[in-house]
Amino acid sequence: MAIVAKSLKYTKHGEPQDVLELVEQKIESPQAKQVLVKILAAPINPADINTIQGKYPVKPKFPAVAGNEFVGEVICVGDEVKSVETGQHVVPLATGLGTWTTHAVYQEDQVMAVSKNVGLAEAATITVNPCTAYRMLKDFVQLKPGDTVIQNGANSAVGQAVHQLCRAWGINSIGIVRNRPEIEELKQMLQCLGATAILTEEEIRTSDIFKTGKLKRPKLAFNCVGGKSATEVSRHLDNSGVMVTYGGMSREPVTVATGPLIFKDIAFRGFWMTRWSKENYDTPERKQMFKDLCDLMEQGKFVAPVHEMVPLDKFKDAAAAALSFKGFTGKKFILDMSK
Amino acid sequence: MAIVAKSLKYTKHGEPQDVLELVEQKIESPQAKQVLVKILAAPINPADINTIQGKYPVKPKFPAVAGNEFVGEVICVGDEVKSVETGQHVVPLATGLGTWTTHAVYQEDQVMAVSKNVGLAEAATITVNPCTAYRMLKDFVQLKPGDTVIQNGANSAVGQAVHQLCRAWGINSIGIVRNRPEIEELKQMLQCLGATAILTEEEIRTSDIFKTGKLKRPKLAFNCVGGKSATEVSRHLDNSGVMVTYGGMSREPVTVATGPLIFKDIAFRGFWMTRWSKENYDTPERKQMFKDLCDLMEQGKFVAPVHEMVPLDKFKDAAAAALSFKGFTGKKFILDMSK
Repeated sequence: MAIVAKSLKYTKHGEPQDVLELVEQKIESPQAKQVLVKILAAPINPADINTIQGKYPVKPKFPAVAGNEFVGEVICVGDEVKSVETGQHVVPLATGLGTWTTHAVYQEDQVMAVSKNVGLAEAATITVNPCTAYRMLKDFVQLKPGDTVIQNGANSAVGQAVHQLCRAWGINSIGIVRNRPEIEELKQMLQCLGATAILTEEEIRTSDIFKTGKLKRPKLAFNCVGGKSATEVSRHLDNSGVMVTYGGMSREPVTVATGPLIFKDIAFRGFWMTRWSKENYDTPERKQMFKDLCDLMEQGKFVAPVHEMVPLDKFKDAAAAALSFKGFTGKKFILDMSK
Repeated sequence: MAIVAKSLKYTKHGEPQDVLELVEQKIESPQAKQVLVKILAAPINPADINTIQGKYPVKPKFPAVAGNEFVGEVICVGDEVKSVETGQHVVPLATGLGTWTTHAVYQEDQVMAVSKNVGLAEAATITVNPCTAYRMLKDFVQLKPGDTVIQNGANSAVGQAVHQLCRAWGINSIGIVRNRPEIEELKQMLQCLGATAILTEEEIRTSDIFKTGKLKRPKLAFNCVGGKSATEVSRHLDNSGVMVTYGGMSREPVTVATGPLIFKDIAFRGFWMTRWSKENYDTPERKQMFKDLCDLMEQGKFVAPVHEMVPLDKFKDAAAAALSFKGFTGKKFILDMSK
């Protein structure tokens, strides 16, 4: 068997359009516990771009293949492989696997089989954003059906995942977004995903949405913006509420007033999916999370973030577009190697 | 029995010197579960001043006797009282008892007996500052002997309590204070109480105290200042460290950078002793805390904060002095009614 893979490689940090090169390389047959995977789809995440730029706390060894997420089909397995079979779809359990490539050889324990009934875009993007939303909803506050969560950047990929999980779990999901010309379409799209209400940064400042008593004050807030937006969102938290920061789009810090910290017992925490995944590599909690998410995806109750599939050889256009969008406005580019 | 109490009362919010009046009032004999207490000493705490000014979240019913802490001697008990006896020393379990008075009648379950071997100044100040230090050291991070905590405002009454508890429990206590002419004397005094090292705000910025490897990086930080001081202290926290804010002396908010929140898993929490005491009014944890503190006080291993005893009729001078010190520089005024 002689397979030649096309891979997006880089040997130094820089802008993706400048440092990534599409190179061909012969792939060896999988040995022992290795599996050979034909990558079907791999998304371009903000963290992938930041890693290439050298701005992320995780540093690759050069030369490196870019990318962390994928869904692929197992096309050949080593003779000691037990957990996956040829023909199955797999997604990564490990990070830094170098997934912007047509084919790759991984260790058996670096991947996990998923049902083929999970769509390619959903499977390719399952390990980062849906898992971030899942863990942030589960691990900071004990939520019950009828409780409320609030988030800014509510149209981000994580934001879209939060709305869908809240709908599935009976939780009210209030989203804050920046105002824009097509705001009504955006509100409609997010409400369609499960958001209870979407307000602009201006609207939330004067809203009485939590004062009428119809909605419980949120015990949990998610922040991917920082600055004034984070302060405004935290202001709506109930006593003993928690704000979880998972991004810093505005590049401004979170400002925490002393009064709410002390007298309202508000807590400010952070969440990093990469750390959680490393610390919970093969825990029952992680298996349960993937099962729950795949079930919802198979039932059509959880869809991938708004995205565009682009061929591997158009990666420069996609990377530039991901950069110009700053990777945070909800539209995700997914490299399509399925053809 | 006809006892006439002298009490510091107020009927409206304002500066203590303006609104407090020393009034005489006949005290009725204690009935049923009531106890008549001769107050021996009662401190002037920042929260007492803020309550009189109307700047505290707890509002009194007018007319109100000022003050929350005291140590007193039981001089008469109602016929259903079981937990305390005439002659015993007692301290408050409840807040808002109105303690700036020579005598008062309380409910049996509002007070707790303490050994007469605990000094008057120690007993009079046990329920707020030592308990705040105790809970902040116990309830946020699991500390082991050899671990490190760091705090700003390290000369505050809570700061002094933290140093002493750390010494008793084998924990390294690093304190940050503002520079001042008598800085060497202040450092010596705090090290005498148990501080491992005291640095000025300027010194900590360039210190390599945690880089030499002799001291573990702190997993716990206490902040009563806010602003730049809080940011600087939080910068030294170890991964997964927690900063607990219990005061806001600079009146500036705490600024939380996104990176440490997400990638270092730093958490920003708050602590309010009043809330904890209400939620744990008669829990085993509270009894154990008072026992631990009283034991240390009896053994001479825990002393009251630097203080000055002042007679009740000099309350205007003491209140003005407490205000001019902003109540936070470590010198506490204690009203002395023991004569």
